[in-house]
Amino acid sequence: MRTLNVALGDRGYPIHIGRGLLGDPSLILPFLRTPRVAIVTNDVVGPLYLDRLQAGLRDLGVQVHAVTLPDGEAHKDWPTLNLIFDMLLAERCERSTTLLALGGGVVGDMTGFAAATYQRGVPFIQIPTTLLSQVDSSVGGKTAINHPLGKNMIGAFYQPKLVLADTGTLDTLPARELAAGLAEVIKYGLIRDPVFFEWLESNIERLVAREPEALAFAIERSCANKAEVVAADETEQGERALLNLGHTFGHAIETGMGYGAWLHGEAVAAGTMMAAELSCRLGWIGTDDVARIEALHRRAGLPVHGPRLGAARYLELMAHDKKVEAGRLRLILLRGIGRAVIHADATHTAIAAAIEARCA
Amino acid sequence: MRTLNVALGDRGYPIHIGRGLLGDPSLILPFLRTPRVAIVTNDVVGPLYLDRLQAGLRDLGVQVHAVTLPDGEAHKDWPTLNLIFDMLLAERCERSTTLLALGGGVVGDMTGFAAATYQRGVPFIQIPTTLLSQVDSSVGGKTAINHPLGKNMIGAFYQPKLVLADTGTLDTLPARELAAGLAEVIKYGLIRDPVFFEWLESNIERLVAREPEALAFAIERSCANKAEVVAADETEQGERALLNLGHTFGHAIETGMGYGAWLHGEAVAAGTMMAAELSCRLGWIGTDDVARIEALHRRAGLPVHGPRLGAARYLELMAHDKKVEAGRLRLILLRGIGRAVIHADATHTAIAAAIEARCA
Repeated sequence: MRTLNVALGDRGYPIHIGRGLLGDPSLILPFLRTPRVAIVTNDVVGPLYLDRLQAGLRDLGVQVHAVTLPDGEAHKDWPTLNLIFDMLLAERCERSTTLLALGGGVVGDMTGFAAATYQRGVPFIQIPTTLLSQVDSSVGGKTAINHPLGKNMIGAFYQPKLVLADTGTLDTLPARELAAGLAEVIKYGLIRDPVFFEWLESNIERLVAREPEALAFAIERSCANKAEVVAADETEQGERALLNLGHTFGHAIETGMGYGAWLHGEAVAAGTMMAAELSCRLGWIGTDDVARIEALHRRAGLPVHGPRLGAARYLELMAHDKKVEAGRLRLILLRGIGRAVIHADATHTAIAAAIEARCA
Repeated sequence: MRTLNVALGDRGYPIHIGRGLLGDPSLILPFLRTPRVAIVTNDVVGPLYLDRLQAGLRDLGVQVHAVTLPDGEAHKDWPTLNLIFDMLLAERCERSTTLLALGGGVVGDMTGFAAATYQRGVPFIQIPTTLLSQVDSSVGGKTAINHPLGKNMIGAFYQPKLVLADTGTLDTLPARELAAGLAEVIKYGLIRDPVFFEWLESNIERLVAREPEALAFAIERSCANKAEVVAADETEQGERALLNLGHTFGHAIETGMGYGAWLHGEAVAAGTMMAAELSCRLGWIGTDDVARIEALHRRAGLPVHGPRLGAARYLELMAHDKKVEAGRLRLILLRGIGRAVIHADATHTAIAAAIEARCA
């Protein structure tokens, strides 16, 4: 087991990464305020891991409640969130009850938001079971649900007490979801870790083949990057926005296609190519850089073009982005591989041209 | 104008109290991050004050959006909260847009929760227009909506940037709502300010008659008490719970009767009498104290008995309270007038007997 720490003072917490951690609930015990937990999972992950986790906790004397949500981004909404509140209230869970998020990014984001708001805040623990959630969404305290007019529009910054990433759960992950997770892994290389990007260029096939050692390294390196950024800028006043490379374009794809049609990581991959395209057109990176980025995404099994929504529709959807300030779209662009910047001066014409060039 | 400060470090903020403050939006301007606001009000308060506030802000160059919610505790729910999100997203309001809550406690609690969660947090300002919200709910950062199984069960601790209490708005307040506000005023005397309690015994009729000077004094003294308690214990780990005198019983009345049948302050008044009754039965205060508390509530025009739901139903509803810990009900009781304590050892039998004695 490897352990990283997110340095946020009295809101700091450890990230444990390793194979088989789900089978060792004594790792969880020290982080419970009282021996009572409510597990939130979904109908895909639950049948695989819920029984084992429940039994292990009960063996340690912990009272366990559970609720199973329908799987998928399409259910990251209020009615589904309310299933968590219904369960917590029906079971009379208290302010000292700890919520456990057992699942991917959607389960983690929703459980975190439920924890942030149930009785104005209860403790929670992330147990991510997808690559995407292990390398990105389980770390950093961003929680949210979607609104029909925009993704992650309703949420809170609320840190977990512990992140427990069992790399063994990736054995059961569909190939498409593994690839979607790799989009966020590649992102860390692109925005701030050029050495890691080169490592990925040499090793991407090992990750696609799920070689345990390669996966463990990539997850730890990704989490280390994320933990550093979050510690420096918890509530996204500055540097943290760089983690959104490809996300403003990507959210437009997700919202425009209807939640769930594209996986988040797939949309981020296509969005990252749009950001790279625009960076190239601004003269900041070369066509050779764009080719390297595209090749790595392709080898990871990711899309490198967005759907043909029309540039005008993209821009309309992007205008709802949380990074819009004083009406100006703040995009994350590249000054080089491993060097992302925030840019608010791109014209709509230039953005539209980059989008069109990257739709297929 | 009198100004108090809530001392919460970088989350601290001023409370301005005075007659006619709504007519001076230059008081608001220094607290806006950008010259753009979204006003949330209801269909009772809006027709009285919205135009004036909007016009004043626009004269100062501020872009103003507004949404009007249906009035009342029965609408303190998710569908109504979502009307705020719908407006914010339709108008493409940004993270720098400030929400203004123009109304009573329900508008304040909902606007605060919307501000806490829209795009994971935007600034907000409280402009309370009822006595209850001026002396209590607008100060301290408790925000929430109700759930069918319990009041204020979904919310956040989220502090405003400014509280602007225009005592002139009380001129238009229905007598029943004025009385409901007095329940919270009396509460401060009971829990921690015996001198204020005696002042209220000498002056309660002046408050019922809305004498401006008496009201201004009572509001300032109440806010000063609240600000001290909140500064010492922002997230209710200890002392702040004392502010909930009468509230656990009161929430049972509100939920049991259906939201809106009893005003919050009315339920708190009846609940406070139940807490006093139980304190007396424990031998902590005398029957003379109970008689003084009852007399003051009666003179304020408040109920001194709860509805006949049956003690078992009360206890069932109270078991959902946020102050339940390890299955035990933590009640706020009185050791004297001006001295409240948290007590977790009252038996259900004793609580039931006190409830029965105070139902009519």
